[in-house]
Amino acid sequence: MKQTHFGNQGGELALIRQIRERATRAAGRSRLGGLRLGIGDDCALLALRAGEELAVTTDLSIAGLHFRLDWHQPEAVGHRALARGLSDLAAMGARPVAAFLSLGVPRELSVSSSDRRTGRRAGIRSWVQRFFDGLLALAEAHKTPLAGGDLAESPVAVADIVLVGAVPCGRALLRAGARPGDLLYVTGTLGGAAAGLARLAELALPGNTKPPRIPKKLNVLLAPHLYPQPRIAQGLWLQRHGLASAAIDLSDGLSTDLAHLCAESGVAAEVDAALLPVGLGANMAQALHGGEDYELLFTAPAAARLPRTIAGVSVTKIGCIIKPRKGHPTISLLTARGTESLEPRGWEHFS
Amino acid sequence: MKQTHFGNQGGELALIRQIRERATRAAGRSRLGGLRLGIGDDCALLALRAGEELAVTTDLSIAGLHFRLDWHQPEAVGHRALARGLSDLAAMGARPVAAFLSLGVPRELSVSSSDRRTGRRAGIRSWVQRFFDGLLALAEAHKTPLAGGDLAESPVAVADIVLVGAVPCGRALLRAGARPGDLLYVTGTLGGAAAGLARLAELALPGNTKPPRIPKKLNVLLAPHLYPQPRIAQGLWLQRHGLASAAIDLSDGLSTDLAHLCAESGVAAEVDAALLPVGLGANMAQALHGGEDYELLFTAPAAARLPRTIAGVSVTKIGCIIKPRKGHPTISLLTARGTESLEPRGWEHFS
Repeated sequence: MKQTHFGNQGGELALIRQIRERATRAAGRSRLGGLRLGIGDDCALLALRAGEELAVTTDLSIAGLHFRLDWHQPEAVGHRALARGLSDLAAMGARPVAAFLSLGVPRELSVSSSDRRTGRRAGIRSWVQRFFDGLLALAEAHKTPLAGGDLAESPVAVADIVLVGAVPCGRALLRAGARPGDLLYVTGTLGGAAAGLARLAELALPGNTKPPRIPKKLNVLLAPHLYPQPRIAQGLWLQRHGLASAAIDLSDGLSTDLAHLCAESGVAAEVDAALLPVGLGANMAQALHGGEDYELLFTAPAAARLPRTIAGVSVTKIGCIIKPRKGHPTISLLTARGTESLEPRGWEHFS
Repeated sequence: MKQTHFGNQGGELALIRQIRERATRAAGRSRLGGLRLGIGDDCALLALRAGEELAVTTDLSIAGLHFRLDWHQPEAVGHRALARGLSDLAAMGARPVAAFLSLGVPRELSVSSSDRRTGRRAGIRSWVQRFFDGLLALAEAHKTPLAGGDLAESPVAVADIVLVGAVPCGRALLRAGARPGDLLYVTGTLGGAAAGLARLAELALPGNTKPPRIPKKLNVLLAPHLYPQPRIAQGLWLQRHGLASAAIDLSDGLSTDLAHLCAESGVAAEVDAALLPVGLGANMAQALHGGEDYELLFTAPAAARLPRTIAGVSVTKIGCIIKPRKGHPTISLLTARGTESLEPRGWEHFS
């Protein structure tokens, strides 16, 4: 966090100071990793271990497109922004080293509300503070210091998350390594995020400007959408054991992300619908096309012995990699009715 | 560039492909640096040299705040976005390794206009293409591959630039190293960007939605604002020669950035107004407070022998570092009228 561009110089510097202190405390608890110099200079400084290379990813989240101020609690927006970036590191088998955040928000989101009952400026946290509550909690869970970023006033809320990770040279899981004969696996379950989003949309009444209160009994159903868990431990396990030939994270949905993997590897794939681990409350369409599950999709040679779970998360075989053939679909879906072409149908945004 | 979120799937993928090809060609010409894997996977992979640590910075540019669609040509917006990030690396004495860009733009900016005279979709480049023209030209000049990023539709144009650089461990130029007795220097001239901006504002007629045509004779006057040159070579020289005790880049104006340097170093400073290298067409207020000159402000022990120019850019002594004293201003400005307090007055944005 360097100079910020909120008009109110006092408030802006106070906000930066607060974020810097919180991030530094969180970094201290996670024993700093490779962070040599965090928020407060022109750049952050990070050190890698010998024999490592860097993995870097950026993900832009925009209000109205990736989240809605009238649907999502700010903690969930912060969590989801960081989860997207961490999930990209997981898909490379990289360990997180540091996160950076560029945040643009309308002025009113950076201001704490005063407590109306007492008339004092107490207690009620601003949208930005609650956004950082969500982001820093996930950062701490993955021992990832927030090492810097930028903060500005913006007519639309935007958050660009940058993740820097490290992986032993030449060991990263790429999209391009799948070969015909490899088997196709996913971690966890599919479609749960899309199902949770559909339920959230039902709860959010038209005309409301604030996110709906979530009934406790729906927490489990909404968690895959609101608080997805990036599969860092699973990606690291695959990288360290050298079993996966290719990997990608499921951010845009199985049909779309598998198409990316096939395109980069120059292969085709068959998916067996009966094998898909459909998530709680989700249907087959959500499992095939719903995005934002942030599970790992990976391939491994048929001879590879994969465990049923990695770090507590299930691993399920869902199909296989085949040679691409002219006149045949890139991805075939085997169902009880026969074989269909599975076309990429990435998730639909709010706009 | 991973998945994008433009509604038009065909157009979006074509755009990504085009950017990927251009960035890959540019990276090839700059012989790749530490880039091991660029656009097209979940993360980019970068390698450092032995004994180096990473410098990372992010800078958010927002339409209406950091640039205006009705004032700035898209090439200048792209150039300036990257220049901000490169300048942060320069201030650390780091060499650029790779850049990442998250770009959100309204749909109409990503579409090429058809040629009205011929009725054919020829020739006329979209705002996004011209933005990349400016960005990639500067990237190539500094041998900095564009290694990834994100692209989305956004109601407001936003560009978050991420720069990854490398510096020998423990050798980075920090803000915190200035000591009483050190002398204070700047590269180049000051206030030229603010003067150029003021002239641009005069050219931009109210009601125009497109940037004004710049008369050729004004190119020199407007260049410091539209096409600032990050001082990468000068920062590297200072780092390699070990002469600077502290450094910062002048993004928000001398009065503001010197205050940051003093705060981080726990010192005060005296600036001699008569010594300031005021830029072409600029006045003293612009030299003191005008931002976006992207020159380096640095300190060095009085015994250090600094050359008059570094890599063709002038180096000017403008004052000295002193002990902070209670009841005295942090920054004193010596003028013909006596000594004044120089208060931080960061540059004013467009909003």
